Amino acid sequence: MAAVVFCSVNKAAQTTAKRCLAAQLKGLARAREPHSPFSSTHSPPLTSLPGSRWFSRGTGVRFMSHGTAGKSASGRSRRGTAVFSGAAAVTAAAVAVAGLVANAGHFQRAEMATRVSPVEKEQEEEGDILERCRTFMSPPVTDISALQESKGEMRTRMEMLVMETQAEFCRALQEVDGGTFKVDRWNRKEGGGGISCVMQDGKVFEKAGVNVSVVFGNLTEEAARQMRSRGKVLKGKDGKLPFVAMGVSSVIHPKNPHIPTVHFNYRYFEIEEEDGSKQWWFGGGTDLTPIYVNEEDAFHFHNTLKEACDKHHSQYYPDFKKWCDRYFYIRHRGETRGIGGIFFDDLDSPSQEEAFSFVKSCAKTVVPCYLPIVYKHLDDPFTPKEKDWQQVRRGRYVEFNLVYDRGVKFGLATPGSRIESILMSLPLTARWEYMHEPAKGTQEATMLEVLRNPREWV
Amino acid sequence: MAAVVFCSVNKAAQTTAKRCLAAQLKGLARAREPHSPFSSTHSPPLTSLPGSRWFSRGTGVRFMSHGTAGKSASGRSRRGTAVFSGAAAVTAAAVAVAGLVANAGHFQRAEMATRVSPVEKEQEEEGDILERCRTFMSPPVTDISALQESKGEMRTRMEMLVMETQAEFCRALQEVDGGTFKVDRWNRKEGGGGISCVMQDGKVFEKAGVNVSVVFGNLTEEAARQMRSRGKVLKGKDGKLPFVAMGVSSVIHPKNPHIPTVHFNYRYFEIEEEDGSKQWWFGGGTDLTPIYVNEEDAFHFHNTLKEACDKHHSQYYPDFKKWCDRYFYIRHRGETRGIGGIFFDDLDSPSQEEAFSFVKSCAKTVVPCYLPIVYKHLDDPFTPKEKDWQQVRRGRYVEFNLVYDRGVKFGLATPGSRIESILMSLPLTARWEYMHEPAKGTQEATMLEVLRNPREWV
Repeated sequence: MAAVVFCSVNKAAQTTAKRCLAAQLKGLARAREPHSPFSSTHSPPLTSLPGSRWFSRGTGVRFMSHGTAGKSASGRSRRGTAVFSGAAAVTAAAVAVAGLVANAGHFQRAEMATRVSPVEKEQEEEGDILERCRTFMSPPVTDISALQESKGEMRTRMEMLVMETQAEFCRALQEVDGGTFKVDRWNRKEGGGGISCVMQDGKVFEKAGVNVSVVFGNLTEEAARQMRSRGKVLKGKDGKLPFVAMGVSSVIHPKNPHIPTVHFNYRYFEIEEEDGSKQWWFGGGTDLTPIYVNEEDAFHFHNTLKEACDKHHSQYYPDFKKWCDRYFYIRHRGETRGIGGIFFDDLDSPSQEEAFSFVKSCAKTVVPCYLPIVYKHLDDPFTPKEKDWQQVRRGRYVEFNLVYDRGVKFGLATPGSRIESILMSLPLTARWEYMHEPAKGTQEATMLEVLRNPREWV
Repeated sequence: MAAVVFCSVNKAAQTTAKRCLAAQLKGLARAREPHSPFSSTHSPPLTSLPGSRWFSRGTGVRFMSHGTAGKSASGRSRRGTAVFSGAAAVTAAAVAVAGLVANAGHFQRAEMATRVSPVEKEQEEEGDILERCRTFMSPPVTDISALQESKGEMRTRMEMLVMETQAEFCRALQEVDGGTFKVDRWNRKEGGGGISCVMQDGKVFEKAGVNVSVVFGNLTEEAARQMRSRGKVLKGKDGKLPFVAMGVSSVIHPKNPHIPTVHFNYRYFEIEEEDGSKQWWFGGGTDLTPIYVNEEDAFHFHNTLKEACDKHHSQYYPDFKKWCDRYFYIRHRGETRGIGGIFFDDLDSPSQEEAFSFVKSCAKTVVPCYLPIVYKHLDDPFTPKEKDWQQVRRGRYVEFNLVYDRGVKFGLATPGSRIESILMSLPLTARWEYMHEPAKGTQEATMLEVLRNPREWV
């Protein structure tokens, strides 16, 4: 019943969104003259553009001020150890399907997790659950009535955020492409499920995937043993440790080689001990993989992320930018996958409320980070040679995802995974040329140079 | 100096080979009427065709008769344990570049290796080293003079075999394609090197790679420690354990979706202890990855392998066929990579001479296994839909090679590897479609069915 109501309302919302986005597109077109919609200003891009559906939401994100720099910095310092020595950077899609295995890894790194303090309700009004659900691509994974009953809990607030992020991003992409996302709901036998939205072979996008997963269950003894090996003992009720893992993750591969690929992922983990206390942490990031270096795009992308980070902590951007460059590194090629962005894991400070607020800021930054770049290059002409180079870079993307990405690796290794949701991150097409090395002085060589020596863009 | 002589002679040999192959092509064309060049007979295909360069060689392979079935069977029985519980199936290309790491894995499984008995010279005349070298794609990795001095040693005989196999296969492919292999020589800092032959975007072949590597050096203490953990202690001179690893490996991706992809790899390992005694073993296999099921092709391919195996031991084909299906398995898809063939590792019985003779039979079987299938489908028409399905299967090939292939994994994990030689096995182009599932009753669905339930073809 709820689903029926949902769907019909959804169509109306979509039409409205289309109109709004069309208005924004016009706004962008105007803003592009004479040069760029965003290069000349350091203020968050697009905020001044009228009619943006996501920006009526985007501007609703009020960054919380907090004076916990010391505490936060010390937390980060401990985290730093894990960061560069192999913290499992599991994407939400893979976490969902990988289930306990993936979580076992994460739980290992949860030893510094703080206890959940009685929920300090966020000042801002998050709005009516049912009303918000109507804008989603599909009803949320958890029953709407259950969400309404647990409105104040972090798992509910995060599920609403990931659903909202999926919907906002999908609609923005549909608007620019003209195509429609295929929406698949899937269930996980052990608990929870997900919603995969994929648009393939569109006008603008070769392949666009935006996946939400919300999975829960009990930690196995094996996973608990693994935690003990890190010195952290968690006591479960009758040996069971209930957990929930959720997230939104996305990879967008455009057709035009002048429009970069983008990836983002925001996720939340929670595990309950015998006494009812919870260990929790957030993870996530957004990163860009251009085929050609465009300094203006790179500045816009990084600066948008930096501004979102800076409202929460001045060290977030520099730390998470470095972490991103380290994580998305194709070791056997000696290249990063792209020009980076931000990446973080095990975020459990300074408070759950503030960590969530930061994650929310990041999630709300996805569209303004990326869409202006898409619109800017929408009609860029390109040559077959440029398309070939894009396909070679796509091959590298596949290499990273299949060889190094921990989320993908966990997911593939776990029986019963939803493989299609894990591998939707792979491009529609890719190419491997033997001994491909761009000639000196070419744009392709410049791109490689940047991938071999990550730059500061802001 | 030797290289100069070599190259000029090489050109003449190539011209001769071209003429011979042209004659064979005509022979094949005739043999195709009314139905097929090989389906109606169980005798090795093509032996009756005149003018085949490789068959004037192929028929020169005299299978040794040996009455060691009992011993061999017991050896295989022990081997069987390792087979299905994770014997490192390292491809020659990757072994070459992975060096000690890869070898450490192999050494672990060498515990049952027999000692080299004083070389029982093979009855057949292997011919003059210099004369044979003139037919190679490039001078061998080891100096010709050094090879001449150690003519009777297994490492020399195996290096000659892998070079010869590379040359025979490359020439057969050049003949059918009309294109030319790019030949790259590379050196390994620690000892040895390789010769990579790659033909890309040819008339018939999208990408064809045939790689030889011959690497040597000393086993590290870490590798030695790893061996001890399996209960096998090897004593080295001053803590050093000299080793040599060599092999030929190849992956051929044709353009026409009715011509299957083929892969083969034959390799040899040797390690010397303090007292000068040697541990050694062979490994290898040939397997086929068609895009569409063709029972006739499958029978020809498997039967050719079976006949080569049967001359050495009646259990070789059934055992190594099963091993192949188990190894080339894409676990997360629940599919084999192709329709298999044979695969073996740790082969150290019944004697070095007979193991080598078996490997030689396998190596000589590569061309007659595959080329008739190529010629048969050379002019098969195909639709864009069939080409798409090929590209999807190429994607699965990439998944296997990057996620599961132990040789690739070792290679990529080893600093200083020659990445281009390891990854030349990847297709020129590949495709990943979300939720791709062929409709029931289609040829594509039949292919999937076979990959999900490996068949007996002979």
